[in-house]
Amino acid sequence: MEANGISQAVISRLPRYYRYLGDLKDEGIERISSHDLSVRMNVTASQIRQDFNQFGGFGQQGYGYNVEYLYDEIAKILGLNKKHNLVIIGAGHLGQALANYMNFERRGFFTKGLFDKDASIEGQEVRGLKIYSMDKLEEFIKENDIDIAVLTLPKQGALEVSKTLTACGIKAIWNFAHVDLELPKDVVVENVHLSDSLMKLSYRINSSQENEAENE
Amino acid sequence: MEANGISQAVISRLPRYYRYLGDLKDEGIERISSHDLSVRMNVTASQIRQDFNQFGGFGQQGYGYNVEYLYDEIAKILGLNKKHNLVIIGAGHLGQALANYMNFERRGFFTKGLFDKDASIEGQEVRGLKIYSMDKLEEFIKENDIDIAVLTLPKQGALEVSKTLTACGIKAIWNFAHVDLELPKDVVVENVHLSDSLMKLSYRINSSQENEAENE
Repeated sequence: MEANGISQAVISRLPRYYRYLGDLKDEGIERISSHDLSVRMNVTASQIRQDFNQFGGFGQQGYGYNVEYLYDEIAKILGLNKKHNLVIIGAGHLGQALANYMNFERRGFFTKGLFDKDASIEGQEVRGLKIYSMDKLEEFIKENDIDIAVLTLPKQGALEVSKTLTACGIKAIWNFAHVDLELPKDVVVENVHLSDSLMKLSYRINSSQENEAENE
Repeated sequence: MEANGISQAVISRLPRYYRYLGDLKDEGIERISSHDLSVRMNVTASQIRQDFNQFGGFGQQGYGYNVEYLYDEIAKILGLNKKHNLVIIGAGHLGQALANYMNFERRGFFTKGLFDKDASIEGQEVRGLKIYSMDKLEEFIKENDIDIAVLTLPKQGALEVSKTLTACGIKAIWNFAHVDLELPKDVVVENVHLSDSLMKLSYRINSSQENEAENE
């Protein structure tokens, strides 16, 4: 449980609700029952009601949910009504790919610059965003009101830079490095371990093949 | 629960165990107790023992775990002792970034080619891997013994191509498209929804700021 009593499981489902509600809005649908939403999302209607009840409901019994209202409320819970400034540390292929994502901006996440220890790419631009050398990082964070650092650099570099970042007052890290960071308690981290994800896929291929073999 | 009785929660922890054991191996450590492993991994020793018991133990009471043996056994459970051939569909920034990951090859995942509907980039290469046009996909999958498709293309394209892929006999999809795919039951999918992950980070920034405000 988080400090405010909302379970991790519900929190991880919120972005998915938000995504489906965005689709409904795009389709011009104004109202939806928990039943119809449950069919679309392939979850039970009772789970949807339970999840939404954790935030005080949102629905009118018998009338279903107002799509736009629910979309906006979930956006607020997710903090998407606030603006965040990001730096990407590690301007390799993945860092540059993330810098090219326009979609993040629509949700309020603005990349302000990229950083890399490779001096030879300093000054280059990715979608109009400059690549800076690492020694400019601290100053840049202060001057550009940066609150999120995205780590797309190798393991060892990530461990080192995470110390600098917390010393600069960064309170949120989106970590793509293949390592678990040790950070002060007030710093939030969201890990995207791509190799772990690929291994989970591999496990499931393996175990579904074993099941098939058993059934033959 | 999966068909073979191993819980999803344990499966999601396996890649992390594998990662830590790999680090221990690199450090030349041959044996580790569940206690020492638990301190490193910041989980309880009893969780480690419970998790490993699901696969029949691995340990000798009082002697700790043999690091290399455990590493190899977990690799087998994860199916990492088998070779997988991949295609990446969508040769934009993210697709190219994934094609550039050498680490996947070390785990037995070999990218064989990239595909894109943009005819103007056909024939270009990413780390020696060719970009093909979409009409070559079916033939390529058959000729190159492809078993995993990586989807790094927009939502609508992902929905369309997933139908072609299952018709070609693909049984595993690593999906980066911002949509839940509807697939036959025997096709396994692992989703990496980057926007969802960023929204979870945003939620946690937001809720930790609210907690701070309450405590002031």
